[in-house]
Amino acid sequence: MAGSSQAVEISRYSGTRHTPETDRVAAEEPLELRIAYSTPDGRATRSLSITMRTPGNDEELAAGFLLTESIIRSAADIASVETCGPPAPDTGSHNVVRVELAANVAVDLGRLQRHFYTTSSCGVCGKTSLDALRASGVDAIESRARFSTRALTSVPDGLRSSQSTFEETGGLHAAAAFDPDGQLLVTMEDVGRHNAVDKLIGRLLLDGKIPANGLGLMVSGRASFELVQKALVAGMPLLAAVSAPSSLAVSLAQEFNMTLVGFLRGETFNVYSGQERVLS
Amino acid sequence: MAGSSQAVEISRYSGTRHTPETDRVAAEEPLELRIAYSTPDGRATRSLSITMRTPGNDEELAAGFLLTESIIRSAADIASVETCGPPAPDTGSHNVVRVELAANVAVDLGRLQRHFYTTSSCGVCGKTSLDALRASGVDAIESRARFSTRALTSVPDGLRSSQSTFEETGGLHAAAAFDPDGQLLVTMEDVGRHNAVDKLIGRLLLDGKIPANGLGLMVSGRASFELVQKALVAGMPLLAAVSAPSSLAVSLAQEFNMTLVGFLRGETFNVYSGQERVLS
Repeated sequence: MAGSSQAVEISRYSGTRHTPETDRVAAEEPLELRIAYSTPDGRATRSLSITMRTPGNDEELAAGFLLTESIIRSAADIASVETCGPPAPDTGSHNVVRVELAANVAVDLGRLQRHFYTTSSCGVCGKTSLDALRASGVDAIESRARFSTRALTSVPDGLRSSQSTFEETGGLHAAAAFDPDGQLLVTMEDVGRHNAVDKLIGRLLLDGKIPANGLGLMVSGRASFELVQKALVAGMPLLAAVSAPSSLAVSLAQEFNMTLVGFLRGETFNVYSGQERVLS
Repeated sequence: MAGSSQAVEISRYSGTRHTPETDRVAAEEPLELRIAYSTPDGRATRSLSITMRTPGNDEELAAGFLLTESIIRSAADIASVETCGPPAPDTGSHNVVRVELAANVAVDLGRLQRHFYTTSSCGVCGKTSLDALRASGVDAIESRARFSTRALTSVPDGLRSSQSTFEETGGLHAAAAFDPDGQLLVTMEDVGRHNAVDKLIGRLLLDGKIPANGLGLMVSGRASFELVQKALVAGMPLLAAVSAPSSLAVSLAQEFNMTLVGFLRGETFNVYSGQERVLS
């Protein structure tokens, strides 16, 4: 699929040895969904949502989202679906989809109001998502914390042994805050990875430990834009994930001086950003 | 953790043989977050969001959510945080958290408007989430489709071989629509599992194939409330996941007559609901 992955430069670690490589990460970019619909005064157009997604099949994503959110009931409710606007300056993706609803469709906008990232005249792109974060007062990480390879590779085992409900159900995501020696300070579980991270950051906040600029954050599963954003707001200098990061997670970490580690399993991991905080 | 898992009755399949068992699934329930804050006219309270989460550490979840969504900036912005209201009638969980913000905190409510599930006077619980779906016009599945164990166990391999970007990046979720013979009709990939499912349902919609009451839906990863809801809206009689379902996913499938399959790997899987559609 064109545009569904991007090349990034990484350092691949195995034990204390590391080699530079070019790797590919899944593309993640914002998609703005606009709908045009009938009102008592004529036709109106509005921006309905901005979703982080992998580019490709965006018309399907828009149509499916409208159906599964119960904004429309059938294919007859859609007059047309098309991508619009100029390509995003950073990746060339078209990140706006416009859906013309049929004239007889009554839209209950109260049903659907989601969190908006800032949109700008340049169109929606990864850069605008980063700019929106900056505008909301999120700063680049300032931290002299350093993490040894030995500390990093010890964290997944510690996290697994603390996951009581996962053992029982196989159904929970986990998050852990750890210090430069790899000691786990807080662990949380939840069906949603973002919830596990919010619970962890909430505990740190209530304990007066935010900004947590001496702690790393480990998550089960993948590293998305949203998770890097949460770690950033908490001031955490390192995010490590068991699985792959997305393209926008990498961009965000690079731009805000965060160390991003992926595929942390056994003695091996990849560093996507901020390698100076990883000591061999 | 109390309340973080629930017992369910399942059928465990291995090849064409199956045995009834009691299993445990991760608990998933709605949490309503209310904030009390200062306005020019005095104090006001409003419901800010409803999130599907695993019960436990709800004060932390509320505090962390407020911080990572940039509603607050520091622990000093929180005067108090506590669970409130009566326990949910179905599980006994307390599903409302109330945060008193400090008097000097200026709240920009425009920053955060999320999709609301219905709240009711009985409090927030799994049952109200199901009732809200019903009220929005989602009906129980009507379908005579049947799926053989051979067809079901063939789907994961087919899905993996169609996942081109996953092979490259290890970072994408996938969804597939398949017929009772196990043939894949549509496959989609995305960094977000909900997006992959929306893309798939959107394709079916644009092709005039909704309600897709003769097709099953397979997803990588876990089965949550949200994914069962999407399959339901599309009229699909069977949802199969590579990993575990949540408690609310099981309840929703049972209530709306959908077949729910989990841990579909190799020759084995579990059936959590609607076993009559699975033929040995």
